[in-house]
Amino acid sequence: MNDAREVVVLRYGHRPGRDDRMTTHVGLTARALGADRLILPDNAGQSAETVRDITGRFGGPFAVELRGDQKAVVKNFEGVVVHLTMYGERVQDVEAEVREAVGLDEPEVIGEASPPRDLLVVVGGEKVPWALYERADFNVGVTNQPHSEVAGLAVFLDRLFEGAELDREWENADRRVVPEATGKTVVDAEGESDDGDAGENTGRD
Amino acid sequence: MNDAREVVVLRYGHRPGRDDRMTTHVGLTARALGADRLILPDNAGQSAETVRDITGRFGGPFAVELRGDQKAVVKNFEGVVVHLTMYGERVQDVEAEVREAVGLDEPEVIGEASPPRDLLVVVGGEKVPWALYERADFNVGVTNQPHSEVAGLAVFLDRLFEGAELDREWENADRRVVPEATGKTVVDAEGESDDGDAGENTGRD
Repeated sequence: MNDAREVVVLRYGHRPGRDDRMTTHVGLTARALGADRLILPDNAGQSAETVRDITGRFGGPFAVELRGDQKAVVKNFEGVVVHLTMYGERVQDVEAEVREAVGLDEPEVIGEASPPRDLLVVVGGEKVPWALYERADFNVGVTNQPHSEVAGLAVFLDRLFEGAELDREWENADRRVVPEATGKTVVDAEGESDDGDAGENTGRD
Repeated sequence: MNDAREVVVLRYGHRPGRDDRMTTHVGLTARALGADRLILPDNAGQSAETVRDITGRFGGPFAVELRGDQKAVVKNFEGVVVHLTMYGERVQDVEAEVREAVGLDEPEVIGEASPPRDLLVVVGGEKVPWALYERADFNVGVTNQPHSEVAGLAVFLDRLFEGAELDREWENADRRVVPEATGKTVVDAEGESDDGDAGENTGRD
């Protein structure tokens, strides 16, 4: 979402079949809420395809990678590592510290913000190894209640970017949804500058 | 979460088998992020059981209902209806209006906040009927991008309550997770007042 730093979401572990939809939702949430890149286990090819397909239609940039060496990716990541877990510190207590660590603190004051650093957000799937808790710069709990890795990722990203991700503009999209009070309108994004009214209203179906 | 108003999450549509985990995650997210009650379609009994089980162990209050008449529930709801959809108005544009509609605006100023009203948050599963778009007081998009109903619900609730849901206290819990920088500690919630250190540290597994 920003040239200065890369925010990467890594899904740790995936059971083909059983986890397909959850992993796909993790990936689509990462894309929609401001991450720049997604790393999935190499057995999650179907989820990767779905996320790439959505990116092709609704825009990017957003990269999707399949990697077999997730432990190594986490261990060797050059930047800040956040691990989302219900056992972690409360997001409301550490979010400012995370923003400062990656240079997202007061970015509007030139010269006063911390330097930008890349951020890896690890979302657990299968049971994660203890080494991940130790490697993480921050173990963060979006509540300390059992709920959903998708929900945890969504709230974390929204708080990380302080809502700025919602105003993101998308490049190379084929289509764009027009937000409206009552309706389902999708327009051709490529032709927008020439013909903004060329809407395909899919309502009442 | 609050005696003055009830926030209810309704999952619209459910395909047994295929949707089990997504519906369960919708329910657990509703509970963890401040809703008071969950309404599931009557064919989602397995998800209802899981959410009730978590509530029994980690606390409440949080009610779970199975209903066969979802259309009627939405139509006859006495309060404000929000429908989460990627075609809706941008959450950042309407969230203040939603809060005002249910009396969550500036609640700290006695006498100045709007009166509390109940809120029904509808989360689409299967394709929702057009009538729902028309019945909803607000059709709200957490981004106008395709991603996850779980992520949309999570961000919506976090913004609705402005983070207050993260400080919620749980009643009648058997156990409680202790937030910490590196660890996996669960304590007996019932015995906490007598013996706060009786922790069951489950780390390194």
